[in-house]
Amino acid sequence: MTADQNSKSGPAGQIESSSRRVYLPGRLHATVQVPMREITLAPTRLPNGATQANAPVLVYDCSGPWGDPEFHGDCTLGLPPARQAWIQARGDVEEYEGRTVIQESGDVEGKYRSTGTLSRRRPLRASQGHPVTQLWYARQGIITPEMEYVAIRENQGLERLRDQFSDQRHRNDLLHQHPGDSLGASLPKSITPEFVREEVARGRALIPANINHPELEPMIIGRNFLVKINANIGNSAVASNIEEEVEKMRWSTRWGADTVMDLSTGRNIHTTREWILRNSPVPIGTVPIYQALEKVGGKPEDLTWEIFRETLLEQCEQGVDYFTIHAGVLLRFIPLTARRATGIVSRGGSILAKWCLAHHQENFLYTRWDDICDIMAAYDVSFSIGDGLRPGSIADANDEAQFAELKAQGDLTRRAWDRGVQVMNEGPGHVPMHMIRENMLKQLEWCHEAPFYTLGPLTTDVAPGYDHITSAIGAAMIGWYGTALLCYVTPKEHLGLPNRKDVKDGVIAYKIAAHAADLAKGHPGAQHRDNALSKARFEFRWEDQFNLSLDPETAREFHDETLPQDNAKTSHFCSMCGPHFCSMKITEDVRKFAAEQGVPEEQSVEVGLQEKAREFRDTGAEIYH
Amino acid sequence: MTADQNSKSGPAGQIESSSRRVYLPGRLHATVQVPMREITLAPTRLPNGATQANAPVLVYDCSGPWGDPEFHGDCTLGLPPARQAWIQARGDVEEYEGRTVIQESGDVEGKYRSTGTLSRRRPLRASQGHPVTQLWYARQGIITPEMEYVAIRENQGLERLRDQFSDQRHRNDLLHQHPGDSLGASLPKSITPEFVREEVARGRALIPANINHPELEPMIIGRNFLVKINANIGNSAVASNIEEEVEKMRWSTRWGADTVMDLSTGRNIHTTREWILRNSPVPIGTVPIYQALEKVGGKPEDLTWEIFRETLLEQCEQGVDYFTIHAGVLLRFIPLTARRATGIVSRGGSILAKWCLAHHQENFLYTRWDDICDIMAAYDVSFSIGDGLRPGSIADANDEAQFAELKAQGDLTRRAWDRGVQVMNEGPGHVPMHMIRENMLKQLEWCHEAPFYTLGPLTTDVAPGYDHITSAIGAAMIGWYGTALLCYVTPKEHLGLPNRKDVKDGVIAYKIAAHAADLAKGHPGAQHRDNALSKARFEFRWEDQFNLSLDPETAREFHDETLPQDNAKTSHFCSMCGPHFCSMKITEDVRKFAAEQGVPEEQSVEVGLQEKAREFRDTGAEIYH
Repeated sequence: MTADQNSKSGPAGQIESSSRRVYLPGRLHATVQVPMREITLAPTRLPNGATQANAPVLVYDCSGPWGDPEFHGDCTLGLPPARQAWIQARGDVEEYEGRTVIQESGDVEGKYRSTGTLSRRRPLRASQGHPVTQLWYARQGIITPEMEYVAIRENQGLERLRDQFSDQRHRNDLLHQHPGDSLGASLPKSITPEFVREEVARGRALIPANINHPELEPMIIGRNFLVKINANIGNSAVASNIEEEVEKMRWSTRWGADTVMDLSTGRNIHTTREWILRNSPVPIGTVPIYQALEKVGGKPEDLTWEIFRETLLEQCEQGVDYFTIHAGVLLRFIPLTARRATGIVSRGGSILAKWCLAHHQENFLYTRWDDICDIMAAYDVSFSIGDGLRPGSIADANDEAQFAELKAQGDLTRRAWDRGVQVMNEGPGHVPMHMIRENMLKQLEWCHEAPFYTLGPLTTDVAPGYDHITSAIGAAMIGWYGTALLCYVTPKEHLGLPNRKDVKDGVIAYKIAAHAADLAKGHPGAQHRDNALSKARFEFRWEDQFNLSLDPETAREFHDETLPQDNAKTSHFCSMCGPHFCSMKITEDVRKFAAEQGVPEEQSVEVGLQEKAREFRDTGAEIYH
Repeated sequence: MTADQNSKSGPAGQIESSSRRVYLPGRLHATVQVPMREITLAPTRLPNGATQANAPVLVYDCSGPWGDPEFHGDCTLGLPPARQAWIQARGDVEEYEGRTVIQESGDVEGKYRSTGTLSRRRPLRASQGHPVTQLWYARQGIITPEMEYVAIRENQGLERLRDQFSDQRHRNDLLHQHPGDSLGASLPKSITPEFVREEVARGRALIPANINHPELEPMIIGRNFLVKINANIGNSAVASNIEEEVEKMRWSTRWGADTVMDLSTGRNIHTTREWILRNSPVPIGTVPIYQALEKVGGKPEDLTWEIFRETLLEQCEQGVDYFTIHAGVLLRFIPLTARRATGIVSRGGSILAKWCLAHHQENFLYTRWDDICDIMAAYDVSFSIGDGLRPGSIADANDEAQFAELKAQGDLTRRAWDRGVQVMNEGPGHVPMHMIRENMLKQLEWCHEAPFYTLGPLTTDVAPGYDHITSAIGAAMIGWYGTALLCYVTPKEHLGLPNRKDVKDGVIAYKIAAHAADLAKGHPGAQHRDNALSKARFEFRWEDQFNLSLDPETAREFHDETLPQDNAKTSHFCSMCGPHFCSMKITEDVRKFAAEQGVPEEQSVEVGLQEKAREFRDTGAEIYH
């Protein structure tokens, strides 16, 4: 039996031919259908000639309908608004006219010329005088379909898997997992919808899901869940175009980006975002001050609350799921950066710093915080409270400016929660390994366990061109320490705009970091995929090894460079050692030998070994093929 | 003034046109000349229009004479035997005939057909009845030229640098370093020859340097020194050839490999190794059991002590600097691997396991340990005591088999020290992050602080094709925890033989891991290169940023993909944000502003700020160019 018999499924998944799309159904909510990618495995050939089936492996899938071969969508039409019914059913929103779509002056080309071909929906907003956030529902004791959805998603079909093994030993081997060291996190054995609700209610997790982004497939960000990764896309004044950005979004979610930030600047910000949102199955984040700055001709000192407010509303209506707001860049913190090696490197941070200096007034994002909260509560846009003073070099790590802002982020967190808005906090940056933990501990304490969302951190400055690696080291560590969302860094960081390959390299490096963190924390079931892959490797099931990997294409291609022949995929040797000798092959012998002894391993190896040694030699002691 | 005026130097280094080779001279030993790469920097343009010189940065250079543009050597002739005079001067060695060069059956092609063109030296061995190891000299209180050489090398010209700054503040900024968290290591403020001697004498560091490898430039491996990296090369039965292997050695040392292991199997092992050794400026390690196995037709059960002994002597005479010897794979540990997910994955470990099972005798490497020590003491070949039972999957991490062997490694370490042989211990493997520290702590305790030499560890199994990243995470962490030498993993690990690009990718990933570990431990001066690079980045000195990076070619290429124009290298904006707006540019403004205030940062920002705010706006508040 493979996976869910009630599930919709296609004959072949998008990422890899021996996987397929399946959907796991909800129990509380009939319309919940959680997509997973099911990887089919070949059977194990046992020493006695028999075969033993290997249960398919279900993996978390961020690619949305685009990853379902039965979905024949078109970017110019957008994804189906699957979540629309859940939102409407709550009876606490109203449709309204919304803002006029801004006619942008940019030079948009081809099919992306305007948002005209996308079915323009009228926006929704809260209508019953209370927030329409997942946080508010959670506090009311309501388990929303979104909450059940993420509970199923986080478990990755683990319960189902437990029923699939007829052989107890086989099951124990594949489901074996080292006890994690969660460093104070509260990971449950299995993630229930009620657990999701509790974590959201206390602010320890968030489900970014704007009511105007019904195309979204819910996901959760929190210390007691799978570590997630974010990919940044976005045009810049120098390069890129809309088509490329939409494709980057699809491409990054295909490889596993859990959220995507659109950091577009310059022309066509609104139109670019519209195309991304209508086609995105994952939460989309933005930094609204970037667009506000465009509206004032790029002059920070001309920014006003009114312009910013309009921008927020425009993006709320479009469906942006979370906003980075640099409200912790307070006037009194700015001089703390003057003696830094690299000053203020956050773009948002420096915009606000310049505004503060020009006006000698407190940051208006800070003074208008409650107003901002009320706007976001009416659409369920979540906060990603920015770290505008994050260190831009190893030298500036963990300095007074950075930690002053972090403390301010904590105060803002509480105020946002008081108004029913979901929150996460952004963190650094460039931090040497031994100073990473301090960031996490202070954030947990000062920000009341709100989820932490860090950029890397990069653990050294000396490797431009390889900052996906310098930062994956820091990201894995801080993920283990408790960070919930890791913002990827591509190899082009500090050097240029990432292309398709850079985006993929960044995403894969961060999937590695996040998964390494899940293993270290002990997320339930996290080790299953490692176990399945290592078993395939040990048994020379090459195709299974490729298919279970984060990037089957690259794994297969690398293998074929050394041994391109088709029969090399079924050969019983690995390419490092050649056909003549292979350590894994010898181990099969050791195992067979130990089994033939018929004594439990804990007994002395001396028992019968002398005799067996002779027999072993007499029968040729030959295992090479 | 730039660098050492007494130094030999070339007009241009091999790696990068704006660097050059310099040599730092010894004080105790006149013939000591330590190569460094000196990177020249452009001056800083100060806000007042003046310029301020930036002292050149000296970096550790593993490339040997090949990295000196004034050296016009030829692989078919080998490197000059620069260390020969030091060895002879000690008066404790004798030349002798040595073993007849084995005529190998392989199909060697072209100029690498035999070792004939290399000037065949008669081998040296100890002649005075005592070991000729650096350990023995250190215990006698002798500071050898090798020890002084590594002391100078480890300091990376830091003392010289301190004299180069006329401006105190500038100097403090560039030499600023976070206090490290050495987790119990004993890092000195400056590394003296005497400190090197002490560390070698107590076995906490080793200088692998066979007396028959006079081409070698000494380097040190120990917890209280810079973290080093090893690159594996070596043909395999399936692919590769001698020319490629020699070139891989040069290529890997160019990018920073501190040691190289030749893991050749199959044909032409002796000839391949001869070419590598005669051309290698870095220590070369081997796994002698690989060659011994070839001599018995690939059948482990046919191995004998006599064949192994002959192989050791052959390699001692050739000049191999360290041997991996799997003497800790004891008969009683083998059944402990039977229930593992991936059994025995070490090639050496499985050869010995098979021998033990076939003979039902204790591992002959263990029973002959004292004999092996005495051979190695006579040539100063160092032990790398193998971890034949290292875990090959996350599932098998830190199991009984692994730790049983580690404990045995500790006993073997003491016995080797008793006979005057230098030692390091090999470690895993595949280990999830939270279980890495335990490996280090047990190794420190059980192996008496002998240097630890680990493969990765890989922190997850799910990313074949990216195991340079899965393992760089673990390597950086274990390097911080105290590991002295990190064995690289290439992207091809588990899939195929690494090509030139894979070797480079592996080396760079491990240079990152090692440097991140040096920063975390607090190695004196480690942060200087980060500081210089970040300063260059902040000041838009693009060429300096490229040149200071671990891989200038890639950094430049990535930058040029987005902004290919030559003037983009001097432009005052970064390619992510475009010419219109850049956060780093704004920070210059903040700094200027704080400076203009004329008040120390610790005073209230309120002082005079109101007034300045008006002035700032009135003068246009414009910083874009």
